[in-house]
Amino acid sequence: MRPSGRQPDQLRDVRITRNFTKHAEGSVLVEFGDTKVICTASVENRVPPFMRGEGRGWVTAEYGMLPRSTGSRMIREAAKGKQQGRTVEISRLIGRSLRAALDLNKLGENTITLDCDVIQADGGTRTAAITGAYVALADAINGLLAAGTIKTNPIKSPIAAISVGIYQGTPVLDLDYAEDSQADTDLNVVMTAAGGFVEVQGTAEQEAFSADELNAMLALAQKAIGELAAAQQTALDS
Amino acid sequence: MRPSGRQPDQLRDVRITRNFTKHAEGSVLVEFGDTKVICTASVENRVPPFMRGEGRGWVTAEYGMLPRSTGSRMIREAAKGKQQGRTVEISRLIGRSLRAALDLNKLGENTITLDCDVIQADGGTRTAAITGAYVALADAINGLLAAGTIKTNPIKSPIAAISVGIYQGTPVLDLDYAEDSQADTDLNVVMTAAGGFVEVQGTAEQEAFSADELNAMLALAQKAIGELAAAQQTALDS
Amino acid sequence: MRPSGRQPDQLRDVRITRNFTKHAEGSVLVEFGDTKVICTASVENRVPPFMRGEGRGWVTAEYGMLPRSTGSRMIREAAKGKQQGRTVEISRLIGRSLRAALDLNKLGENTITLDCDVIQADGGTRTAAITGAYVALADAINGLLAAGTIKTNPIKSPIAAISVGIYQGTPVLDLDYAEDSQADTDLNVVMTAAGGFVEVQGTAEQEAFSADELNAMLALAQKAIGELAAAQQTALDS
Amino acid sequence: MRPSGRQPDQLRDVRITRNFTKHAEGSVLVEFGDTKVICTASVENRVPPFMRGEGRGWVTAEYGMLPRSTGSRMIREAAKGKQQGRTVEISRLIGRSLRAALDLNKLGENTITLDCDVIQADGGTRTAAITGAYVALADAINGLLAAGTIKTNPIKSPIAAISVGIYQGTPVLDLDYAEDSQADTDLNVVMTAAGGFVEVQGTAEQEAFSADELNAMLALAQKAIGELAAAQQTALDS
Amino acid sequence: MRPSGRQPDQLRDVRITRNFTKHAEGSVLVEFGDTKVICTASVENRVPPFMRGEGRGWVTAEYGMLPRSTGSRMIREAAKGKQQGRTVEISRLIGRSLRAALDLNKLGENTITLDCDVIQADGGTRTAAITGAYVALADAINGLLAAGTIKTNPIKSPIAAISVGIYQGTPVLDLDYAEDSQADTDLNVVMTAAGGFVEVQGTAEQEAFSADELNAMLALAQKAIGELAAAQQTALDS
Amino acid sequence: MRPSGRQPDQLRDVRITRNFTKHAEGSVLVEFGDTKVICTASVENRVPPFMRGEGRGWVTAEYGMLPRSTGSRMIREAAKGKQQGRTVEISRLIGRSLRAALDLNKLGENTITLDCDVIQADGGTRTAAITGAYVALADAINGLLAAGTIKTNPIKSPIAAISVGIYQGTPVLDLDYAEDSQADTDLNVVMTAAGGFVEVQGTAEQEAFSADELNAMLALAQKAIGELAAAQQTALDS
Repeated sequence: MRPSGRQPDQLRDVRITRNFTKHAEGSVLVEFGDTKVICTASVENRVPPFMRGEGRGWVTAEYGMLPRSTGSRMIREAAKGKQQGRTVEISRLIGRSLRAALDLNKLGENTITLDCDVIQADGGTRTAAITGAYVALADAINGLLAAGTIKTNPIKSPIAAISVGIYQGTPVLDLDYAEDSQADTDLNVVMTAAGGFVEVQGTAEQEAFSADELNAMLALAQKAIGELAAAQQTALDS
Repeated sequence: MRPSGRQPDQLRDVRITRNFTKHAEGSVLVEFGDTKVICTASVENRVPPFMRGEGRGWVTAEYGMLPRSTGSRMIREAAKGKQQGRTVEISRLIGRSLRAALDLNKLGENTITLDCDVIQADGGTRTAAITGAYVALADAINGLLAAGTIKTNPIKSPIAAISVGIYQGTPVLDLDYAEDSQADTDLNVVMTAAGGFVEVQGTAEQEAFSADELNAMLALAQKAIGELAAAQQTALDS
Repeated sequence: MRPSGRQPDQLRDVRITRNFTKHAEGSVLVEFGDTKVICTASVENRVPPFMRGEGRGWVTAEYGMLPRSTGSRMIREAAKGKQQGRTVEISRLIGRSLRAALDLNKLGENTITLDCDVIQADGGTRTAAITGAYVALADAINGLLAAGTIKTNPIKSPIAAISVGIYQGTPVLDLDYAEDSQADTDLNVVMTAAGGFVEVQGTAEQEAFSADELNAMLALAQKAIGELAAAQQTALDS
Repeated sequence: MRPSGRQPDQLRDVRITRNFTKHAEGSVLVEFGDTKVICTASVENRVPPFMRGEGRGWVTAEYGMLPRSTGSRMIREAAKGKQQGRTVEISRLIGRSLRAALDLNKLGENTITLDCDVIQADGGTRTAAITGAYVALADAINGLLAAGTIKTNPIKSPIAAISVGIYQGTPVLDLDYAEDSQADTDLNVVMTAAGGFVEVQGTAEQEAFSADELNAMLALAQKAIGELAAAQQTALDS
Repeated sequence: MRPSGRQPDQLRDVRITRNFTKHAEGSVLVEFGDTKVICTASVENRVPPFMRGEGRGWVTAEYGMLPRSTGSRMIREAAKGKQQGRTVEISRLIGRSLRAALDLNKLGENTITLDCDVIQADGGTRTAAITGAYVALADAINGLLAAGTIKTNPIKSPIAAISVGIYQGTPVLDLDYAEDSQADTDLNVVMTAAGGFVEVQGTAEQEAFSADELNAMLALAQKAIGELAAAQQTALDS
Repeated sequence: MRPSGRQPDQLRDVRITRNFTKHAEGSVLVEFGDTKVICTASVENRVPPFMRGEGRGWVTAEYGMLPRSTGSRMIREAAKGKQQGRTVEISRLIGRSLRAALDLNKLGENTITLDCDVIQADGGTRTAAITGAYVALADAINGLLAAGTIKTNPIKSPIAAISVGIYQGTPVLDLDYAEDSQADTDLNVVMTAAGGFVEVQGTAEQEAFSADELNAMLALAQKAIGELAAAQQTALDS
């Protein structure tokens, strides 16, 4: 039995709230159960120096956690003057994942920055962030299309992300903190709505895992991505 | 006429939501109109090295803005590795103000850290932060009293804060961004509910101001603090 | 009785020495009693990137303390790689105050940087710094006028600054360290020679202060600014 | 055809030189073709503060590249004062992977730090680093056993790592720089010699990849790990 | 002819003012012509962690320049968050030199920090700093002896420093900025009053120098150190 | 007797291996006994901003040590975010020394960066680095000449460097770590092959040294430079 009483293949309640704050071109509050992340998409009409003049756009991401988004207070990275390795790693993952959703050639020389700030953490913050950031990105893209800044939609396929793990010997979906801190294996999967893999990051926390276990986890992830893509679409249609 | 149509002595709608996130000992979302700040109070059973063994407690604060809490995206201070001067200045102001609310001798050797993170900015973020942080602090103190960690309530007087300014020649209360960016004078006032001044910080943005103008602004602030203290008490009683 | 034997409304001896060092366009040693600050004004024929092409000038300031300007040695900020919050806060105050003395439109695209370095501290370093920096600024402006770089004098009004406090229940002027470390309230006031307020920053160190106390302190400040403005003018005339 | 003329499942020449430098408890030069990494293991008789008194050991890793290990000179991270995100990410990967090789309870309160410094890069530096670091770690462990510092061997299973990718539509093993910079998918796999997965990190560089492609890549990796584990054992036996 | 009209073996006017500021255990203003440096000695009753319990003392130094001590304003290192290489190098030189003046075993577990801050630069700041720092150090030592904190005088020999160079083919003493910026060779020499070498640092700025030139420069330095040691003694006796 | 059994005027075995790594325009492994340093020369077709348009080139250097190049592991400077003072000082020494070997006017607007990374330290790393860096520089220069990027050879004279010291009262050449850590005096000398001094840096570690001792050490250095210059030439000819 899972601590939350969920079935092995059951997601937590997923809520996606658009227009959560008013300034950003895309602003989403995404909730996977008690994990809550504010994802904003900011559009700037320029690209990094190394890309100037190529006619292509750029997508990048930054991730952060409010100091008391967690059970015990974490040091504020801005005050310390240094981001933790974990923060840098997740920022890079989000950026790579969202770039995979777009044809950057169709974005023009615009940069979209996705800021994902965790206001409450209960496991799975990076997968919630990617899932929410896609919706914020889509809103920003729709704004660029509506304004005529870009002519064709650069989105190749929606993307979403989910964690899977092996908890007490059983592959389970969407681990919350109680499970995550005790799981044998932790796998984060980013996929397109069309079913392709964008990122697969699996770590054996205790014991090495087998190819069979990996495939069982990937199957769970595949099912979940369908549900998350549906939730994203419902939010964008509302 | 004010851009918002408010009367000169009229506050924006003030909303104080307790228990906004689940981990902190005090967690408040404070809204002054479209300005929204998450204020959390975190309790740790220790004091900074220079205070050890004195039996007194400590209160400190850190302020931050999400990169896209503002009209154009600000650089993420954690990524840059350095806080702006304004951030440092406001963090210090919040900390000093909240320490003035307490008798630190009654807090025992505990530290309470107030994190004030702006998720949407529309002027007056520091005064909203102080007003919300007091409620988070009160919740944390009540928790310490309930747990028996401390025996007597260290709160000397509730405190709250408001901005006042001279906009187009008229002293006005609680400036939003549209007013703030055009005001001649900007005054931030922190007061006790009992009517004493804790901090008075006034800056002439264009022309120097007179003693009469200062007194007119202070009178507006005094009235507002009463309303804010009532809103704080209502929130704490609910 | 004040530790120094001064009357409540009595300034310490104020000395302003121009041309204290030889390289800067303005170089002043300002002394408020035992507080000694070197203030230099450096002119550069350019403005920060965000102001280019607007035809306006800029004034900025940086404050520092020699490590042993104080009773016990402070860490050298350059060696630590980080300025203290207090340093940043005072630098910003000095810059804002001096900008208020000028019509930046008449300065052309020139930047004047005011460096205020405390070589001996005995309370009131920031107010001494502002008072001395004005004289260094005036010397630099006069140099620009003499060289024909600018045509009209951008100085709107001289400015000066003083601290006031409530010491053992009595409002007193120009606190030295012995008083400052024990005062109930600390108020720093920047004014124009013409009597307008530029900055008012008051902090209750122990107990909140009343409007009457504030007004008594402001009256003391107003008197002092007249004396300081006279001392500045005497120095500039010599 | 691969640029190097290798078969899809063919590794580059692997060379493992022990005792490459004289000071470290383990010192290995590992070469995967033209990729050359110095891996040292340093033993210290203490653990990080958060682990003190638990009787367990710790393994950590740091990765770096000499500025001219690459085709164009990279900035020296020490001079810049900041490690790149990629550097941090790889350091964390190496550390996690090597910890998976050990039962930390059998290491006593000792810390082993693995420094992996790339002196020449031609693709696959992180997998070469992990493969070489294991040998340096084994040497350090053997030294601790020989000295009687620890009584039982904490190694659970040797580990090694290899990259796999999809190059021009074909899954290929051990990509060199010419392939890596053009691959559609990049997968890094860390495995135990016994055939269990420790880390699986796959990224779609251009197009999303399918479960079939993933499984084909994992099969290649599985074969390669056997060869690498044999090379490690041969080096340790010599 | 030298720009200043001095003879090749002629020092600039040397002035040493003790008790220049009031807080430090030793405080000296040293002037070599227009080069002016404030040197303070601060005593702390502790040693760095790596020396604890050994009964020996420590002497260290930090060097800085006020931003406008030079002809064009230098960036403030504290604001930039990083000291220049030159600053670090000179700090280390001053510290090493002053340690050579003392028998650290006789200092007890005390640390003396020498802060040398250049308020006006005209060449030779490091040699002026060392010469002045010795006097500040001697004052601090005398204070420790007078207070009975230490029993025997740890000073082995006074030290002083001077620059020598080859200017337009002629070895000259104590280069000012006009000479220094054009010299072929720059040699800084630290010596004991007794005539021993403590540091010799020579750099060929344009052409390599010969052993004969080196010896001619060292002879000039030797003569100068005698004069400087006499000036130090006169100051200490006054 | 020296710990190594060498004669006072005997160098350790010197080995210079060109083309040690494949990417750099010059790449040398230099060995002075057990001291091993990788020196690479990287050419970039640009100069620092302050030199643009002058037609001259630039040479700069950076020095580093692998964390476990030494007997006990040193902190990784890149991870700490700060270079030690010693590192900065040696980097500057190498850069100055190599610039002295060239007529920068003949280099065109090209920058050559010399990276000297110590992989194994046993005393004398800075002198080995300079000696090896010269060979890497010569290779890079020869490449520029061969490619026709520059027309005339900018090398004025080869340079090399050696350490000398006073060990147990006797001047000895090329100190290894066992001697260096106990020497009374440490002198690093950089010379041209033609016999001119480029840098002379001597430090009294225990007792001040005399002019006679200095001259004895310089004579040893002079002899050694001839041998090192021959070894450089042999390597370049092979």
